[in-house]
Amino acid sequence: MTEKRHVFVLGAGFGGLTFCQQFKNRGALITLVDRTNHHLFQPLLYQVATAGLSAPEIAQPIRSILSRDKNITVLLDQVVDLNLAQKQVILETKTLSYDYLVLALGGRNNYFGHHEWETFAPGLKTINDAVRIRSRALLAFEKAENTGSTAERARLMTIIIIGGGPTGVELAGAFAELANHVLKRDFRNIDPRQAKIILVEGAARILSHLPEDLSQSAERQLKRLGVQIRTGIQVKDIRRGEVELANGEILRGENILWAAGVSATPLTQKLGVELDRAGRVKVNPDLSLPGHPEVFAIGDMALVLGEDGKSVPGVSPAAMQMARHVARIIGDELEGKQNPRTPFKYWDKGTMATIGRSKAVAQIGKIKLTGFIAWLAWLTLHLIFLIGFRNKVAVMLDWTYSYFAYKRGARIITTMPRESEREKPKSA
Amino acid sequence: MTEKRHVFVLGAGFGGLTFCQQFKNRGALITLVDRTNHHLFQPLLYQVATAGLSAPEIAQPIRSILSRDKNITVLLDQVVDLNLAQKQVILETKTLSYDYLVLALGGRNNYFGHHEWETFAPGLKTINDAVRIRSRALLAFEKAENTGSTAERARLMTIIIIGGGPTGVELAGAFAELANHVLKRDFRNIDPRQAKIILVEGAARILSHLPEDLSQSAERQLKRLGVQIRTGIQVKDIRRGEVELANGEILRGENILWAAGVSATPLTQKLGVELDRAGRVKVNPDLSLPGHPEVFAIGDMALVLGEDGKSVPGVSPAAMQMARHVARIIGDELEGKQNPRTPFKYWDKGTMATIGRSKAVAQIGKIKLTGFIAWLAWLTLHLIFLIGFRNKVAVMLDWTYSYFAYKRGARIITTMPRESEREKPKSA
Repeated sequence: MTEKRHVFVLGAGFGGLTFCQQFKNRGALITLVDRTNHHLFQPLLYQVATAGLSAPEIAQPIRSILSRDKNITVLLDQVVDLNLAQKQVILETKTLSYDYLVLALGGRNNYFGHHEWETFAPGLKTINDAVRIRSRALLAFEKAENTGSTAERARLMTIIIIGGGPTGVELAGAFAELANHVLKRDFRNIDPRQAKIILVEGAARILSHLPEDLSQSAERQLKRLGVQIRTGIQVKDIRRGEVELANGEILRGENILWAAGVSATPLTQKLGVELDRAGRVKVNPDLSLPGHPEVFAIGDMALVLGEDGKSVPGVSPAAMQMARHVARIIGDELEGKQNPRTPFKYWDKGTMATIGRSKAVAQIGKIKLTGFIAWLAWLTLHLIFLIGFRNKVAVMLDWTYSYFAYKRGARIITTMPRESEREKPKSA
Repeated sequence: MTEKRHVFVLGAGFGGLTFCQQFKNRGALITLVDRTNHHLFQPLLYQVATAGLSAPEIAQPIRSILSRDKNITVLLDQVVDLNLAQKQVILETKTLSYDYLVLALGGRNNYFGHHEWETFAPGLKTINDAVRIRSRALLAFEKAENTGSTAERARLMTIIIIGGGPTGVELAGAFAELANHVLKRDFRNIDPRQAKIILVEGAARILSHLPEDLSQSAERQLKRLGVQIRTGIQVKDIRRGEVELANGEILRGENILWAAGVSATPLTQKLGVELDRAGRVKVNPDLSLPGHPEVFAIGDMALVLGEDGKSVPGVSPAAMQMARHVARIIGDELEGKQNPRTPFKYWDKGTMATIGRSKAVAQIGKIKLTGFIAWLAWLTLHLIFLIGFRNKVAVMLDWTYSYFAYKRGARIITTMPRESEREKPKSA
């Protein structure tokens, strides 16, 4: 009996998880490391931030997803360092050796050198981010209800979203609907419909990865919801409750959200290989690291050029396709197959962004969809790919409920110790 | 047109909320103040702590529940002080006057003078408490999986629950099921079934408010789940991860939970009226404050003696009955009816405690139920009284799923900044 080979996977996002699921029963041991205990269905994270879904509906315990495969060990741990020369991963609690290493650590918010902006304009990456954003946004309406000052009320009821990509568009649309419909009847001193949602985008149009007519359609649909769109203008500075634009104009709002860019985990800087400006690893065509055929990088942390010379987008289908590709290569090699490694090819299944109830844009191959049809397609696809039977049913239930009742199921403020929690058992 | 009278309600628990719902359309203005934005279905809070339900499933926005009644204003605010002489409530953001005041601020954990224990043995009162307990309990299993030390593993896998009332019993049963069934297959280095759940109770038996045979049944059912029960012994001290019993024995466990007692909010000390040891207000038979016929105290903060001379228990049906009683009195008086105030009479509809899947005890009048039948009764009643249509369906779905799949839907660790969150975007 030969000793089993050890495949180490870092990160349980779409890339890491798909790798584990595809790599089943090949006689190697897999160790999957993540710093959280759950796989997050990131495409629906904005729905938690906007009170549409509850956190557990889009997060599934990693152990539970993979519990049946006894070859897979899941570790809740942090990667401290990598020693590629010794083929070792240094975790917080231990150091482990690998035969193959799959890096799937994803990205984090990119503030383009302005880390100080993070405090004032949080981004949306984790469940905690989403719950915090939800609490702060709902709390702003509560504060507006309590204040006597008209100017302060307007400031409290303004949400500024920086970045007009899919996340920014989805956040803007969902917050506009929250204010216009869900909260409409709930207050006595304020009219939530007077809330101002401002979407700021540096490029000439929002959703610039989509064809121009779809961008225009998205813009129209957002404007119908009352969203103010500012395109073609850069952000110069962000301070507490203030965004300064390149032309000196100052936007004021209690909630500022960052959706303007993603960069790879800083761990890539330790790999000693070439990175792009966003810190992504310039991988070989087979997705391996230059000089390290036993190490692969997939998903948001990998820079892969497609046949058109453009980089493969940082979306979940791309991460999953890369995972399958690498699972095949490592699987074949462990089985002793001698066939040369094939280059990765990205199959673009289409892109979509939802804007609100019955509103969306989608491109699937040459087909372009807008409005209700695009929204139905969006709904269906997200339900299909949501992991876990219970989640699908629960999310469907919540969506049906929101659709017909114009309410949302997760409108609770779970105050955060740092900012919004008041002193504890004083009273009330 | 006469000016509208102002009824001020503090607290949106079962008492305060029921008051508002019963008091509809009587021509008075109601202001309801709570320091959270949601009404919490407290009887199911332990299910959030033990990963059975998600937070939004048992919390409903107060505004949303009451949005249709335009006479009711909901304020998210904190009560700082009361001025009974001037008939004023001093909130954090403003001071308001009342004609009638209903105090329904509920209770908080009673550490019997040992406030320092709260850090080491948190109680279960708010959504945040529940989410924090869930995260810490799940994290302990993760740490156990990572450790190499047998002693440390045993310590990590021990949960000590102090207090053998309904909450303690429910927590013990639910954690035992989590370890025995839900997590069973998820780990590689540890066997979650070896987790130790210890229930400590100072009195001679658990659930001492129920008849002895039901206590015994509950004890048997808990033992069948592997719960260790220590009755008739007091806790002498609690330190980080350690409980010292009166006999000097020391219990060690990563998670210690406090379910041993409830006291009224400290605000009662400012009322200038007689309180019992738990800080509850000794109200008049009509539930008004001695010397203040326009002020009422209801729910957990009121000490009301029943016909048998025993105090009315601090349970939600009692709070709701008191709310109805006070709503009737104030309503009548505002309509100018001259009939004298009637004394409050508590109608005991029964008590129940659930122990786990198909396990419970219940007493309804003279009928005693145990096991599956009691559990079904528990399930049905809690579903009926859960506020909001969506919640009912979602909770039913989750229960059905847990029952058949032996899984739980909310097993996610949402790390808390203070303790368990590791440094943020280091890696993984």
